[in-house]
Amino acid sequence: MARWEPGAAERLQRAALELFATRGFDQTTAADIAQSVGLTERTFFRYFRDKRDVVFHGQDRFGQLIIDAMAAAPPDAPPMGVVVAGLAGIAPFFADDRRPWSRMRQKVINENPSLRERERHKLADMGSAVADELRARGVGEPAATLAGESAATVFGVSFMQWISEDEERSFPDIVSSMLSELSAVTAGDR
Amino acid sequence: MARWEPGAAERLQRAALELFATRGFDQTTAADIAQSVGLTERTFFRYFRDKRDVVFHGQDRFGQLIIDAMAAAPPDAPPMGVVVAGLAGIAPFFADDRRPWSRMRQKVINENPSLRERERHKLADMGSAVADELRARGVGEPAATLAGESAATVFGVSFMQWISEDEERSFPDIVSSMLSELSAVTAGDR
Repeated sequence: MARWEPGAAERLQRAALELFATRGFDQTTAADIAQSVGLTERTFFRYFRDKRDVVFHGQDRFGQLIIDAMAAAPPDAPPMGVVVAGLAGIAPFFADDRRPWSRMRQKVINENPSLRERERHKLADMGSAVADELRARGVGEPAATLAGESAATVFGVSFMQWISEDEERSFPDIVSSMLSELSAVTAGDR
Repeated sequence: MARWEPGAAERLQRAALELFATRGFDQTTAADIAQSVGLTERTFFRYFRDKRDVVFHGQDRFGQLIIDAMAAAPPDAPPMGVVVAGLAGIAPFFADDRRPWSRMRQKVINENPSLRERERHKLADMGSAVADELRARGVGEPAATLAGESAATVFGVSFMQWISEDEERSFPDIVSSMLSELSAVTAGDR
């Protein structure tokens, strides 16, 4: 039996991102990552299926936080109100001091097509999960699907804005502004 | 030099979809498809890179039609007005007599993860192309990106509605209704 390493997944993730950013994703092996924090390749594969997996560590919990926060919204809240509550639930992931880390991570993703692909998947899955939760609350179609897709759009665009150079607004402020913009654009007011 | 076969790509596509629908995607080879319309496997690969490619034949032209129709919209039209003009440009693809064909094609896609994947890609690329065209018209950010994403959302949801059982409304009518719904949902009115 392999020994349990407290915080190993987080240490491996941090080391992986540093190596991907400096040396390149393709030039970094699982063994390189493990060795850089004094662990074995075998330990690496106890936590992650592959190198891509490391970049998205923690995102399942992230999706669950959105759903939990949606479930806590008032029963009579309109669909986008529930979405707003859901996105507020993940605001702690986007605290200001995490911006440099998120910027580095996104740079790694942008430079690798297979990571961009996986990211696009995760975002689409998030939209579907939001729509499922809205349907479970009794929201009909097409409102549930449209609100789920809009949640993914607003989250994706807000995140890219949050990590953009010179941006200093908080993540919740950006989300709120994007929602207003989306509403204005779809109403034909912009 | 191989001989040019008039309409070969369309014949191959139609034959491929029939075989995928009846025999299954994995159980059908490029040679099977070619033989069923009296052509060789070599001819098949002159038109298509692989089996998946056949299902999406004609979609590049489709994307170009949206962009052309957007370019013909009045210069002062708001972003979503330009999107509406773009989607109107592809309405001929969704004439009522094409519904059975589109239903069969979608059934094939839904049953195969790699086809669903490629479809998701095509839809995301369409959203990006729409946003690019809006930016080229001078639309600023985030309006261009939000309108591009919303175009992909409205198109995707409208198409699924158009092919759903018992649906009899025309594609343009469905698009128009989805746009109103999206506007109401993002405004918090639904």
